[in-house]
Amino acid sequence: MSAWVLPDHIADVLPSEARHMEELRRRLLDTATAHGYELVIPPLLEHVESLLTGTGEALDLQTFKTVDQLSGRTVGIRADSTQQVARIDAHLLNREGVTRLCYCGPTLHTRPERPYASREPLQFGAEIYGYAGQQADLEAIELALACVREAGVVRPVVVMGDVRIARSLLGGVLASMETLRAVHVALAAKDASALAQVSAAFPPATRKALAALLQLYGDAQVLEQARAQLAAFPAALKAIGALQWLGAQLQVQFGADVELAYDLADLRGYAYYSGMRFSIYAERCNDALVRGGRYDEVGAAFGRNRPAAGFSLDIKQLVSVAAQRPLQSAIRAPWADDAALRTRIRQLRAAGEVVIQDLPGMPSEVDEFACDRALVLQDGQWQIVPLQPDSPGHAQPAGVRVTA
Amino acid sequence: MSAWVLPDHIADVLPSEARHMEELRRRLLDTATAHGYELVIPPLLEHVESLLTGTGEALDLQTFKTVDQLSGRTVGIRADSTQQVARIDAHLLNREGVTRLCYCGPTLHTRPERPYASREPLQFGAEIYGYAGQQADLEAIELALACVREAGVVRPVVVMGDVRIARSLLGGVLASMETLRAVHVALAAKDASALAQVSAAFPPATRKALAALLQLYGDAQVLEQARAQLAAFPAALKAIGALQWLGAQLQVQFGADVELAYDLADLRGYAYYSGMRFSIYAERCNDALVRGGRYDEVGAAFGRNRPAAGFSLDIKQLVSVAAQRPLQSAIRAPWADDAALRTRIRQLRAAGEVVIQDLPGMPSEVDEFACDRALVLQDGQWQIVPLQPDSPGHAQPAGVRVTA
Repeated sequence: MSAWVLPDHIADVLPSEARHMEELRRRLLDTATAHGYELVIPPLLEHVESLLTGTGEALDLQTFKTVDQLSGRTVGIRADSTQQVARIDAHLLNREGVTRLCYCGPTLHTRPERPYASREPLQFGAEIYGYAGQQADLEAIELALACVREAGVVRPVVVMGDVRIARSLLGGVLASMETLRAVHVALAAKDASALAQVSAAFPPATRKALAALLQLYGDAQVLEQARAQLAAFPAALKAIGALQWLGAQLQVQFGADVELAYDLADLRGYAYYSGMRFSIYAERCNDALVRGGRYDEVGAAFGRNRPAAGFSLDIKQLVSVAAQRPLQSAIRAPWADDAALRTRIRQLRAAGEVVIQDLPGMPSEVDEFACDRALVLQDGQWQIVPLQPDSPGHAQPAGVRVTA
Repeated sequence: MSAWVLPDHIADVLPSEARHMEELRRRLLDTATAHGYELVIPPLLEHVESLLTGTGEALDLQTFKTVDQLSGRTVGIRADSTQQVARIDAHLLNREGVTRLCYCGPTLHTRPERPYASREPLQFGAEIYGYAGQQADLEAIELALACVREAGVVRPVVVMGDVRIARSLLGGVLASMETLRAVHVALAAKDASALAQVSAAFPPATRKALAALLQLYGDAQVLEQARAQLAAFPAALKAIGALQWLGAQLQVQFGADVELAYDLADLRGYAYYSGMRFSIYAERCNDALVRGGRYDEVGAAFGRNRPAAGFSLDIKQLVSVAAQRPLQSAIRAPWADDAALRTRIRQLRAAGEVVIQDLPGMPSEVDEFACDRALVLQDGQWQIVPLQPDSPGHAQPAGVRVTA
């Protein structure tokens, strides 16, 4: 096998995509900064105990493990940064007030999450710690929407749910851990026959409510139906009321610019969600661009159970639906042992221009810049002249011969 | 052991340092862009064959390895991106002309490179492919200096050498691989007695030249001494001439702003250097901030032996000597179910301001913003008022009570 064949679902990011990813990365971090989020950079590698405590089996299976030669202990490469940032809030910052943190860095997955997904997502996320009220949930969704809109996604779809609704339905049921897990799997898969089968021994009211939950997805009318069908479950009604408040707030702010939907059986993804959760989709896309919600338990392993809400997204996935941006304009310059040329190039670069020097006898090959001007010596002065626009990468200045 | 204890030489980057790292990261990438370098993002994980081909034992020992569950093959987490970028140039871009690439991302080391070094450097680097002439070497040094100066390093020291000098001295010598390796180790460690011992069986002229090499470090006079002492070795003389040309070019451009030095026995670091090499130091620092040079052989494993010159640096190390930058100014705002407030906050953020909302009943705790203003309702309008400057993180607006 050739030395340059990469593992499956692992890829190099070449210049045109890398440029877009870097631009998007900056816009997302700047958006989080404008909302008062402070950047943290958790490490790629941690002891598996801290990386995986309280996060469930799915994340464990997703995590590459190896041995630390310095200690002989097992370490993992992070598959998700959420619990790392919770650790930083709980243990390192140890603040009393509301704390806002954001992060952006690569993660590794042992298996791809979707058929064409990368095993190396570039995870960007933001978290609010220390506030149990709904205003924090709202802020998380607002910031996620601001990020998705920075990427140029038009009319994103926000799908909201709450894990406390299913939990409330199962609250009084005596069942084994295996049965409850099977119920979760059937709900997540929206598999009505499997759900009927695994809940066969449950009280009739619970069975009926669970079956109803599977149909409770769609627009705001879903919440009215849910109020009627789940009236026997007070905790579910409370969560539904909270979703109605969030929906009303988002409706006022975004109107027709954002589509709101609800999916009261949504239980996909990692196990750490403890309340409201949301996903954001681009129109005509089956895969969520953003997943987030409330995970109040995630800091517990680190000795401080602070309320937490937030979201994360994969910049590699987001860039694939993002609006493309034009090439940066550049100036082509020759190489010469000439102080005036050097000074001119330095000044142009300091002024924000891209200046690409052709080394003696060999032209530079550029794809990701539009070389629309050239620096040429005319009348004893280094002057900028326009380049023929037809071949931006390799154009020659009009009327000027470059040594070749 | 507590769940939050990180492995040795692995650390979280907290907000104040993360902010500086992100600012420096952008400045370095922007500097490379202004010189016409296109960004690529090689993966964190590759088959060990492609990650380690032709790179020598040092890099192999530095590389974390694990098994890819999808293929059962051994994969490594990159400890250095240089050969990954060479692979991209050789195999993926496959251009004929001069190609300039830059990259920035984390790497992992099994062991720290220095007593207090991180095992997770944030490696930034730039490479020119396809040009064998010295102008490319000069461009690599110039760009590295521009990067170090972006970080605010005053009067950096550039130390230059050339691996062809030592190779030329050993060119005609019949010796085992082990002996040659021992000579390299003794030269790298500047260990005169070890060098005398391992070269005891060499011809007298070679022994004398090798011993002389150990003393050949210092300012430009070193090159004159080297010309005299190594006169019997034509390839060494040619390399010395090339260093003189580079030194003269840098002297003209930077004058007293940069200190130039030479170390003709310098052989430290990875094995892939094939010609000129350089390091850049901050004044009064023992560890090089930048290492670079010419590595023409590095693409050979990927089927295309293109000339290559470039450098890399660790942003985590560079930020520790970089000039600190002031906190970003921010506006503190209350939370209210008020469309006018929401609109005002959105406008301020769109205009580049940081606006931090205090959620109802609980102040936000911020360290990395200077909250010098607050948004308050006065005369029915949301207006910006100055905050008392004495406690920037937690200040209250003058004369305004925030709900608590």
